[in-house]
Amino acid sequence: MKEIPDYRPPMQILESVLYCDDLDQCGIFYEQVIGLNLVSCQPGRHRFYRLRRGMLLLFRAEVTQTETVLVAGQAIPKHGMQGNGHLAFAIEPEQYKSMADRLVAFQISIESEIVWPSGGKSLYCRDPAGNSIEFATPQIWFDGVP
Amino acid sequence: MKEIPDYRPPMQILESVLYCDDLDQCGIFYEQVIGLNLVSCQPGRHRFYRLRRGMLLLFRAEVTQTETVLVAGQAIPKHGMQGNGHLAFAIEPEQYKSMADRLVAFQISIESEIVWPSGGKSLYCRDPAGNSIEFATPQIWFDGVP
Repeated sequence: MKEIPDYRPPMQILESVLYCDDLDQCGIFYEQVIGLNLVSCQPGRHRFYRLRRGMLLLFRAEVTQTETVLVAGQAIPKHGMQGNGHLAFAIEPEQYKSMADRLVAFQISIESEIVWPSGGKSLYCRDPAGNSIEFATPQIWFDGVP
Repeated sequence: MKEIPDYRPPMQILESVLYCDDLDQCGIFYEQVIGLNLVSCQPGRHRFYRLRRGMLLLFRAEVTQTETVLVAGQAIPKHGMQGNGHLAFAIEPEQYKSMADRLVAFQISIESEIVWPSGGKSLYCRDPAGNSIEFATPQIWFDGVP
């Protein structure tokens, strides 16, 4: 194999993806309940959210699995999944209670709460598409907040 | 609805998820080709990678859709998807060429390259499970590197 002398691995994830059938219904969850910042919406295809250092892209898989989208003559590769996905948002320890209260106030069931033996804690619910959404203190993975 | 006075939306994604059937084969891609840092491996169930501010979790869906895992008496909610997922890694503009060279050196096909009209560029390939993996400069979403 040819050596690539100046190669450095990527160090951040720029886009995380979830799929859902009903974008409007999921939009209410991500925008009104969670409070994410919607930056792009194409009805029936996607809703995109900007966070501090990355994007959450919400797609309707039946569209992105089949459509051909060209940008400057180049195709965006097709993708799409069925089932219940998973994603975790980072929250600070002092945000944990207000996050749980927020879900309760919107009548979103808390599916599980885990205090990890190695540190940190996680709060789990479902988005309207059935994806498992976690709100976790970064201490579950990192020593201190990354 | 009850007001939650100190509520703040989460600002970062802590865990992004992809699914694959053959974890060992995907491990070669994420570890040897991309160069990610493996921090947890449970053969047949998962391989987890730590990046600078978040985690990439690679799961075998047929396990996580069905197994019951208890942590301190609480269940980790079940999840799992079938199909071809999508994820984008952030790379700096000066990393773009060495990233493309790296894929070529490992005989990974470059499926598409897009120069976005609004700024930034993206390089696309597939992981061994068929997930669409993108390497993009953050300028495609952010003014300057986030």
